[in-house]
Amino acid sequence: MTKVAEPINQLIKKLAKLPGVGGKTASRLALYILRSSKEEAYDLARSIVSVKEKITFCSVCYNLTDENPCNICKDEKRDKEIICVVEEPGDLMALESSGEFKGKYHVLFGVISPLDGVTPDDIKVQELLERLNNGQVKEVIVATNPTTNGNATALYLSNLIKPLGIKVTRIAQGIPIGGDIEYTDEVTLRKAMEGRRDF
Amino acid sequence: MTKVAEPINQLIKKLAKLPGVGGKTASRLALYILRSSKEEAYDLARSIVSVKEKITFCSVCYNLTDENPCNICKDEKRDKEIICVVEEPGDLMALESSGEFKGKYHVLFGVISPLDGVTPDDIKVQELLERLNNGQVKEVIVATNPTTNGNATALYLSNLIKPLGIKVTRIAQGIPIGGDIEYTDEVTLRKAMEGRRDF
Repeated sequence: MTKVAEPINQLIKKLAKLPGVGGKTASRLALYILRSSKEEAYDLARSIVSVKEKITFCSVCYNLTDENPCNICKDEKRDKEIICVVEEPGDLMALESSGEFKGKYHVLFGVISPLDGVTPDDIKVQELLERLNNGQVKEVIVATNPTTNGNATALYLSNLIKPLGIKVTRIAQGIPIGGDIEYTDEVTLRKAMEGRRDF
Repeated sequence: MTKVAEPINQLIKKLAKLPGVGGKTASRLALYILRSSKEEAYDLARSIVSVKEKITFCSVCYNLTDENPCNICKDEKRDKEIICVVEEPGDLMALESSGEFKGKYHVLFGVISPLDGVTPDDIKVQELLERLNNGQVKEVIVATNPTTNGNATALYLSNLIKPLGIKVTRIAQGIPIGGDIEYTDEVTLRKAMEGRRDF
């Protein structure tokens, strides 16, 4: 039995619940927190409490936000005519930091997954359709992940939205920048050839 | 510019300060905390505050503890005649979880490192020598890391302690269990050959 002081044990256990953090990493993080200044450790604890207290979902796009509607939905400079549909808030954050997209977003909070019992009613599909009702939106970019469920959800949305006279596009799939054709899997190569573009 | 809500941004920044946690991992951890229950997140925050409030150093062995002396030093069932010297509390925790050692510990809080200006006075060497004064200790196992500084510190301690008539040993160096001789570095192989034992 390890004779580690109980408060340290507790912290290690709590840290080990975080994704990608195993027992060894949790111990290392706990020791780092023990070595860091009291102020730094309290700052971290306060930040954790703060996100749980202040962050809610945007009632328009379901992004995580501390104001409602969120600052992307409120931003008059962003293009109201394009909505980019993503699976999770993390996808939205990644796309935002690429700086390419200047329209609005819609977070589905999941993908349709029959095997896991996730139906269209379990994710924010109805909420998306309601946003498309006002006739303002000209294009929906479906940026779900290029997985089986992500692709199926994209197809499902496309079948629902196209009849509304709105253009539906899928984010491009191909060889990632810095990737190596030799070591790229066959499906990606097939997609990359299919999706080739004129210069 | 990424338009992420400020409390989330703050949490990501704080998490990214942890060792081995980069920007992407910090985002993933922050999103996990956002998704987890309020109770779970508060538990984590409380654990962080709790270690900073309750954990101090044991005045005997300098282990991290919530009681003084620590529960290892207080434990009457552990062998008072053997002291295992380690660099950091993390080393002690790792050795404890191996369950092999049943003696007492002494945490140096560093190693002698002339290049970094760390002298024997900067680590708990004097405190170790004082513990050896009572004539109770029969063996000191030096379990500093097998690095240049760790080895030099081990040699330094050995030269100080041997004249007191106390046996000084060094934790074994060799091929780790599950390791592969083909891919083991030369120095380790040399040490493993040197340290070979009879069946």
